[in-house]
This record gives sequence, structure tokens and C-alpha cells, in this order.
Amino acid sequence: MKTQAQKRFILPENEIPTAWYNIVADMKNKPLPMLHPGTKKPLKAEDLYPLFAKELAHQELNETDRFIEIPEEVREMYKNYRSTPLVRAYGLEKALGTPAHIYFKNESVSPVGSHKLNSALAQAYYCKKEGVTNITTETGAGQWGAALSYAASAFGLELAVYMVKISYEQKPYRRSIMKTFGAQVVASPSMSTKAGRKILTENPNYQGSLGTAISEAIELAQQTPNCKYVLGSVLNHVSLHQTVIGLEAEKQMEMAGEYPDVVIACFGGGSNFGGMAFPFLRHNLSGKKNTRFVAAEPASCPKLTHGVFEYDFGDEAGYTPLLPMFTLGHNFSPAHIHAGGLRFHGAGTIVSQLLKDKLIEAVDIKQLDSFKAGILFAQSEGIIPAPESCHAIAATIQEALKAKEEGKQKTILFNLSGHGLIDMTAYDAYLSGDLSNYELSDEEIKKNVSTLEKLA
Amino acid sequence: MKTQAQKRFILPENEIPTAWYNIVADMKNKPLPMLHPGTKKPLKAEDLYPLFAKELAHQELNETDRFIEIPEEVREMYKNYRSTPLVRAYGLEKALGTPAHIYFKNESVSPVGSHKLNSALAQAYYCKKEGVTNITTETGAGQWGAALSYAASAFGLELAVYMVKISYEQKPYRRSIMKTFGAQVVASPSMSTKAGRKILTENPNYQGSLGTAISEAIELAQQTPNCKYVLGSVLNHVSLHQTVIGLEAEKQMEMAGEYPDVVIACFGGGSNFGGMAFPFLRHNLSGKKNTRFVAAEPASCPKLTHGVFEYDFGDEAGYTPLLPMFTLGHNFSPAHIHAGGLRFHGAGTIVSQLLKDKLIEAVDIKQLDSFKAGILFAQSEGIIPAPESCHAIAATIQEALKAKEEGKQKTILFNLSGHGLIDMTAYDAYLSGDLSNYELSDEEIKKNVSTLEKLA
Repeated sequence: MKTQAQKRFILPENEIPTAWYNIVADMKNKPLPMLHPGTKKPLKAEDLYPLFAKELAHQELNETDRFIEIPEEVREMYKNYRSTPLVRAYGLEKALGTPAHIYFKNESVSPVGSHKLNSALAQAYYCKKEGVTNITTETGAGQWGAALSYAASAFGLELAVYMVKISYEQKPYRRSIMKTFGAQVVASPSMSTKAGRKILTENPNYQGSLGTAISEAIELAQQTPNCKYVLGSVLNHVSLHQTVIGLEAEKQMEMAGEYPDVVIACFGGGSNFGGMAFPFLRHNLSGKKNTRFVAAEPASCPKLTHGVFEYDFGDEAGYTPLLPMFTLGHNFSPAHIHAGGLRFHGAGTIVSQLLKDKLIEAVDIKQLDSFKAGILFAQSEGIIPAPESCHAIAATIQEALKAKEEGKQKTILFNLSGHGLIDMTAYDAYLSGDLSNYELSDEEIKKNVSTLEKLA
Repeated sequence: MKTQAQKRFILPENEIPTAWYNIVADMKNKPLPMLHPGTKKPLKAEDLYPLFAKELAHQELNETDRFIEIPEEVREMYKNYRSTPLVRAYGLEKALGTPAHIYFKNESVSPVGSHKLNSALAQAYYCKKEGVTNITTETGAGQWGAALSYAASAFGLELAVYMVKISYEQKPYRRSIMKTFGAQVVASPSMSTKAGRKILTENPNYQGSLGTAISEAIELAQQTPNCKYVLGSVLNHVSLHQTVIGLEAEKQMEMAGEYPDVVIACFGGGSNFGGMAFPFLRHNLSGKKNTRFVAAEPASCPKLTHGVFEYDFGDEAGYTPLLPMFTLGHNFSPAHIHAGGLRFHGAGTIVSQLLKDKLIEAVDIKQLDSFKAGILFAQSEGIIPAPESCHAIAATIQEALKAKEEGKQKTILFNLSGHGLIDMTAYDAYLSGDLSNYELSDEEIKKNVSTLEKLA
């Protein structure tokens, strides 16, 4: 056996990025403005103050600063787990017999098991700095909730999490993790909010969605003194914080002596995709590179590949600003796939604009294909991936097999957004043949989005 | 906020150790010989061939080679996750207000979540190399079984795991992890072996122990063609493979510019303790250093602090060689603590000899104290530790508070053997007040060990 070249690339602590990358500053076509839900006029930062920490409100609308400094307190916390390794997936390459070079950024080594901590720490820090004492949020699979629970504990904030009911039941361990860090966890829909009561009255067995959980978290924040709401994806400032992933990966690919031809990430609201893709995409925008970017979404919640580009709410009850996005409609109730983090009806505004401008691509992955890919990855690389990340792996395998068919060397980079050690019931179900694909027909989608209110 | 000094120390790939350290070669008083269970004569390597791969049998009895080369194939697999980080626990230090410097070696970042993979890969490799096709093993909490399942998959071996029944039920996710890697998992005691049937006939509700699971795995190996048995702890060759932990930590402590005054690890059979301690202990043996070594065992299974030093079997049915060890008796049935990996009646022969010679110390930790320590660690460092590792953390906290009381700076290094993300039912039980301490009285212990057969 020949000794292989280096497998894992890790940055020294002083090479961890000191600023996040704000892609909006480099976009020729900026995202359309978010609209105030009442006046339907473009939103100003001040409009967001009641809901978000001020600094986050400004980051959300910042169109001019290409780089935004990472506060020292956040950088100190990043050092607990960053840089995450960039890994050459020799095992997967061998299993596929592909000439492609496959790399993955391993965000699963974060102490809470996913990339979500990158933004959780930043948001908790800004809230604390502005004197906030309580925060609320929603969580789907629980990755975001787990991350924010630790971040809240680290910065001394009280946290209430609305966890989508289906995940609350499917993934009890994530619920326990949040409690261990000291957070309060409520299954959503709940009777604790107007939005929750309304939906439970109409449909007592409703198993929840991210859209509903967001409504509940917003409502609680609005009714609690000195309380802000924080969000784990979709919004621009969340993707901004996640760019630490791609900025590190850029340096690490340089250490490996390669540059990606394709960059892939799974897609729920867009934060792990944006975090990985945007730093590389900036070299496309400046004309220096010609990399492809592929967002891998579930076939059961295919807003990028089958949705419409419209103004829509980010939540089910309609509490959020109106966002210009690819959407399946804010009343869309996604099937109960195990990739709970991807069960969201819309895409962030930046990603939506980039897709409209054909600067990125999207692919939809069926649930069974995602788990098949995840198990191949587990057996060849030793890491059991989160059901969400399985979508990125499935898309990566498609690209690697295409390279094999074409006999082309190609460099593929994907983001392993998290591990699946707490999602083992999903693997159990897959292995015992109890999972299905939950595809959506175009007609169903058409019917659903037809109820969206048209704007001028 | 002042920028703190470096937090995590990681070795470049070419600094990962290329040989394991065999402490027996440096011990003045060698461990007493293992005895053949039939003849009661000292065991020769050949006596172990029916059960173990030959190379492992030789490693088990090797008293002369100080360093044993790590095969290239194993080193290649190590590169997938090693070096693991050495971390300065600033968060925990602050929470305790201690002048002590606390470092931990983070073995929880291994893809299966614990240090167990270090020996699993080595043992699977040697079996494969010698043409073995099937292997069997036991697992307590499931950390070893999970690690070996991946190792077996990586080297193309079929694996059957006997998992202690109480853990099989308490920790269903670890069972699923093993299945995802392709292993067969059986709750022990089972009806598939004579040893299992015997104990189930006597006590149909018996919830199992490591001792019983070992008997079952050995029996299956003996009755399966081309099959070997592999063990996750206790034996000398297992500790040998684990020394990669301490050898790395030694270099990493040097990077941090410190040397430990105390080295701490939790204690079940001794492999993570030995793996961490032996490389540092060699400098005590050569008279260059005077470090303290503390094994942290559960108060409910206290062989080091309350057991007797006798010849005893490693398993419940008496299939193994007789081992000279600190033991509570091979029929001892440990309480159902959540630290399943520490529920073993005896200690490895090397550790037993070292303790007898007062070259190491031991401390017993109550279950509630272990979880209290684990939660403090989780909230201050962000990592939820395995219930086993919580014992090391509790002992570390005792040392750090002593340093605070005495106003002494002291450098403490402990091994974080694994994360507890798959043990969340244990944290749930602790947080809801459903756990108890399960202490053992000296009288109970005396009564149990009195049944041990005395040897000349």
C-alpha cells in the first residue's frame, strides 16, 4: 500500500478568518428589497429593530461592505472548534471508482455536530452586547436549536426554542441536548401562542413546520420584555456568518493545491449553502473563475427547482417581512422527511436572486437516494452524515459518476453540514425499508402557489 | 476582552506517531503471567492463537519491545481523524475559578465519537491480514461496537456484536450506528450461545454485563469457521494501540509549552486510561518526571479502589485466561449506571500491577457527581461528554478545586474519551432527578470476591 497524500487540511489558529464575506456588495443585480408586511414599502433597518438585535438588522440590509469584521468575542468562541478540517474523501472516491477528486468541509466536528454554531455564536453575542436578556427561535431537526442553546449558555442568555413537533418526536436526543445546555424547548405548534392555537384548532394533529415554528417564536419574542428573535437560516446575516466555512475552505483548498470545479451543499433556507458557496462565487463574480455551484434540495420540498419567484412571507402566520424568493407558498406543508432542516417553503433572498441570474444551479434529491448516498459515505469515510447533508452527498455522487462516465478529472467540494448520530431513527427506518420518497407533482405545487398574493 | 492564547493544538499529519508505546518493556515489576484456564500454567502466545489474530497474541505478551510500529494501513486510517485536538479548557477553568491549567485530549472528534476506533482499526487490520473473514466482539455502552463496526466495514470483515442488554435498550442509536456500518447486533444475554442460555435460564430478566457479553462473543468465535474474537479494552494489546493518544498529547503539551502535573482518565477495563497515561508514565519510570496518574472509576464498580488483587477470569462464564488483576469477581453484576463502558468487574493486568506498585492512583466517582461534572463541562466547553468521560471530568474538577484551595498553579490533563450525544437518555434521567448513586458497601464486595478461587 502506497502512502497517500495528505488527507486532512487544518488551518493554524491565526489563519481563521477575521471577517465574514458579504456577497451582496459584489452582486451586480442586488436582491429585490424586503417589504414591510403592513405598508408593503421597502424595509429599513429600523423596521427590524423590534425583532432583531440592531447590528444584525444592519447586517441584513448591508449592500456595501464586502467584508464585515468578526467580533473578537465570537472569534474566541470559533477557536473552540475552528478551523474545521477540509478532508479529501479518498474512501468515497475509491468506492465510486471515479477520477474526480472529492473534498468535503467537515462542519460535523463542531461540538454540537453542525455548522449552525457559526451563526448562533454571532447572534447570541450581538444580542448580549445590546443588553438583550431573552431570545426565542425555531428549530426543525434541532441542529439550530442545539447550537443556539450552547451559544445562549455561553453568552448568558435565556432561550426558548419552538421545535417542529414531528422532529420533537423523531429526534428526542436533540431536545435533550438543548435542555442540557439550559434552554426551554416547546413542541410546535403549541398552545402557548396565538399562531399555534389557531393552527391546532384547525388541525389538531398538525405535526408542525418551520414556518409555523417561526411564527410562534416571533410572537413570543414580541410579547416578552427585552427579548429578541433569532433565526437559523434564510436571512442574509445568517449566510453572512456562515461564510467562515467557505473562506476557510478556500485557504484549505489552496493547501491541497486544488480549486473546485463544482461546489455543492444541501439546501433548506440557504445558510450552509451560502456559507460554503459565496466566498468561492466571488471569484466568479469578478470574472476570475468559472466554478459551478449546486444547491441540493429535497424532492419533497423543491422550491429552487420547482417553486415560483415571488414575494412571500418567511413564516406560516405571516408575521415576517415579505421576502422576494423562490417559494412553494408560506402555507405549504412539507412531507415528513427526516431531513427536518430542509423542510422550509422558501429560499433566502440572495440565493433566490443568484438562481434567477443563473449564477448558481439547483438539483432535487429523493429521500431514498439521499439515505443511499449517506450510507455509502458512512461506510467509505466512517462518518454518518446528517439526513440534510445526505442531499449534498447524493448530488456529489451524481457529479462524480458523471466525471467517471466522461472520463474527466474534476474537483468537487461539498459541505458536510453535520453528522447524523442523533438522527439514527431515520437510518433505522431507511434500513428497514420504511421510508418513502414523497415527491411533489408540478400540479400540486401550482395549486399551492396560486394562493400567493400578487404584488405590483 | 483580551485575545487568549492558543486554545487547540493539532499535529501536522507527518507528526502523527508511527509506533505505539509498550510500557511493559519499561516496567521493573512486570505484570504477573496470565494463566491457561485449563492447565493454570503461564500462557504462551500460541495458546491465544485459537482466539486472537497471531500478531495480537504476540503483542499481548510482548515484554521487550518499547515501541511497536503502527502498520501503514492503520496509519492511513488514523489520518482520517488524527491527530485529535489537545484543547485548553479555558471555559471550565473560568467556571471553576481555578488557578489550574486544564487541558483535555478530545478523542470525541473521532468519526464514531470515541477513542475506541484507535484499537478497532488495528485489530481489524491484523485479522484481515491473517485471512480472517469473521470477527465477534462484545460492547457495553456501544462505543466499542460502533468503532469496530466501522473498522470491520473499512477492512472488509463480517462482524457480530453482543451488546449488553441494558445498553441495547438504553442506547438504541448506537445499535443503529452498528447496523448502518453493516454489523449484526445481538442483545446479551441471548439464546444464541450456551453461556447466554445458561444465564437466561437462571435469571430470565438479567440485563447483562460486559462479562457475559464477552463469554457469548468468545463462544461464537470458537464455533464459527475462520473467525476471531476481538476485545475493546482490558487486554495489553488494546492499551498498546491506545497509546497513540498519549504520544500525541505529549507532543501537543510541548506545543502548549507545558507538562502535566496530573494525568486523568476514566476507567473501565483500562484502555483509554492506559492509552493516555502510559506515554507520560514512561518519563516517571525513567526518573525524569514525577507526574501523578489518576484512574477515575464509578463508585458502583470500584475494582481499583475497593477490589482485590487476584487471578480471575475476564468473563462471566470463565472462557478467558486467568488474569492477575484488581477485581470484584467475574460473577459481579454491576449496577445499571449509564456509563456502560465502565461496567466491568476487573482491571487490565498492566494497570493492576502499576496500581499495586503505587505508580498510579485511583478514585471512585458517584454517578450523580459524574453527571453534575459533565453538565458543567458541557455548559462551559460546549461538548456534551460521554457518561464514561464524565468520571474523568469529575476527578479533574476535584483536582482543580484542590489547586484553588491551595492557591497552587497546577497543570491537569485529562482524556475526553468520547462525546455523549448518543447518551442523551442518561442526561434526561439526571436532569429529571431519576438517577441514583448505586454505591457498593465493602461488605458486599467482600462477600462477592470471597467466591474467587484462590491460586497457589
